[in-house]
Amino acid sequence: MAYIKLNKKNFFHNLDIICSHAKDKSKVAIVLKDNAYGHGLIEISTMAKEYGIQNAVVKNTYEANKIKGYFKNILILADVHNGTYSHTFHIVINDPQDIECLEENTNIHIKIDTGMHRNGISIKELKSTIHKALERNLKISGIFTHHKSADVLSSEFYWQKEQFKLVKNELREICEKLSLSNIKIHSCNSAAFFRTSNPNEDLYRIGIAVYGYKMDNFLKNNIDLKPVLSLYAKRLSTRKINKNQRIGYGGIFKSNEDISISTYDVGYADGLKRFNQEYIDIPNNNKILGRVSMDNISVNSTEEEICIFKDAKEQAKLHNTIEYEILTSLNSNIKRIIV
Amino acid sequence: MAYIKLNKKNFFHNLDIICSHAKDKSKVAIVLKDNAYGHGLIEISTMAKEYGIQNAVVKNTYEANKIKGYFKNILILADVHNGTYSHTFHIVINDPQDIECLEENTNIHIKIDTGMHRNGISIKELKSTIHKALERNLKISGIFTHHKSADVLSSEFYWQKEQFKLVKNELREICEKLSLSNIKIHSCNSAAFFRTSNPNEDLYRIGIAVYGYKMDNFLKNNIDLKPVLSLYAKRLSTRKINKNQRIGYGGIFKSNEDISISTYDVGYADGLKRFNQEYIDIPNNNKILGRVSMDNISVNSTEEEICIFKDAKEQAKLHNTIEYEILTSLNSNIKRIIV
Repeated sequence: MAYIKLNKKNFFHNLDIICSHAKDKSKVAIVLKDNAYGHGLIEISTMAKEYGIQNAVVKNTYEANKIKGYFKNILILADVHNGTYSHTFHIVINDPQDIECLEENTNIHIKIDTGMHRNGISIKELKSTIHKALERNLKISGIFTHHKSADVLSSEFYWQKEQFKLVKNELREICEKLSLSNIKIHSCNSAAFFRTSNPNEDLYRIGIAVYGYKMDNFLKNNIDLKPVLSLYAKRLSTRKINKNQRIGYGGIFKSNEDISISTYDVGYADGLKRFNQEYIDIPNNNKILGRVSMDNISVNSTEEEICIFKDAKEQAKLHNTIEYEILTSLNSNIKRIIV
Repeated sequence: MAYIKLNKKNFFHNLDIICSHAKDKSKVAIVLKDNAYGHGLIEISTMAKEYGIQNAVVKNTYEANKIKGYFKNILILADVHNGTYSHTFHIVINDPQDIECLEENTNIHIKIDTGMHRNGISIKELKSTIHKALERNLKISGIFTHHKSADVLSSEFYWQKEQFKLVKNELREICEKLSLSNIKIHSCNSAAFFRTSNPNEDLYRIGIAVYGYKMDNFLKNNIDLKPVLSLYAKRLSTRKINKNQRIGYGGIFKSNEDISISTYDVGYADGLKRFNQEYIDIPNNNKILGRVSMDNISVNSTEEEICIFKDAKEQAKLHNTIEYEILTSLNSNIKRIIV
């Protein structure tokens, strides 16, 4: 069976860089949504706990319940429903209406739409939403926003920062009037975090950087993050192919010599994206020959197992997408091994 | 939470067409690998059993064990290991070496490489492999091949058929000499099955057609298969966007009017492929506005839930791929509902 190796040394190396920039480990919140960006929710949580990370960010209660014992605080981005949540869970308010669903004493983080226009309340709804939350006896434990263009060289990043500054100022006044305290303010994802020289917010939501990717070529080169995940496949069968013989669906690879090839047990149903070209280079001078099929690839190797990729950047380039999609597409059924 | 609807009427309609062409329901083997092509292994098995399908094809023992009680015979395509298999499991031999791993009395189907050059033994290894299997007291319950180009208008399909005819002839002789019987012979996947006017083999491995897709435009138009799966998402938040405002990551969608939009809870981590263009048309005159992100899309709707796609063909066209990849990419965590 195909399997995934998780490099603990690289993971800790990335956390070292992140925690050093944050200056305070307790401010780092690791983003673990979508099976920890495809890396394995439990495996990454186990290592993050060992490292001393106290905060996590997930998509829904299903994910949060799986890692309840691992973190002091778990922020749930998109799962508002009636019922009692654990006291360590913090529920994101994406729409003013969300407040009405929640039970008393639920911890909430109010998300502010500072320009992405996707989730969160508008800036002008801040005051009324806080009042509504307090009327319903919800605990406001955070106020935050999300950047739409932190990984792009444009003025948008600074404009959203300015918008959030206005939010912070208004919030300060509201808090003073209502004697509110202990509200964590945060806006940084990985790119915004590294783009800020001296970050001084209460929490940093770090996703892609934890897993070894920067996503922004203009960031200083001394941010030396290392990929954590690599994908391996095992040999199913081996055969000799003569010159001019073709391989796989549609026979799009034609051999120009007599070679030994093997079929390995990974395909697009496992999350290795389908590719429909004559060959693709993979590590160790191997090539995927012909189409990636649902469960198989053919490779010019006879090794028992081979590495398919060590760096999602290469795959992302091939498929004209971003590392995030390459990683989150990896099927959760694939075994994850910490090395 | 995003969810999937499985249309039972369409599924039975497809099975009606398939079983009528097969003339014998007991010869149809439904291909259920990779979570039933993304449809849901248990859900599809339940319906297939109700319809009276007796044979299934899966990738590995993990899948086979999950549906053990549903079928009389389960063919396992790529999972040879030491240990006892259920008497209803039939293990595919992809490489002569596989024989050495298996315990006595295991049912095997020997796969023959008739030109795809991916899995299976070569034609010239047929006799020696049968002898080797008998020496190890394995039960040869099937001999089969797989077409590489059944869905393409080319001579390859006929050439592979000829190759398999030679195999059948040789097999007949071997069986007579060794007094072997009850070996099921099969070569048809969905495309080869419908391309054959009067199929007369012992088993037909039908995958994509069961789920409502033909994959071959040259097939007779009276094969009226209907898609079984449709994808839905639920509203997370709603907002008003003014003319000239932008939405989502990178802000690539710019509105040319004041509109109400909502964010829905599906993204590329759920298997809806990432798209990086201004908008994409989806059913009911809705549009995905801007990029598909990891967990969210923005849509020009305020409905509580919307349909993302009813026919994987549209998605396949958009992403320059095939329906198989669109369907198998759907995350197994998404709830499946039979309607």
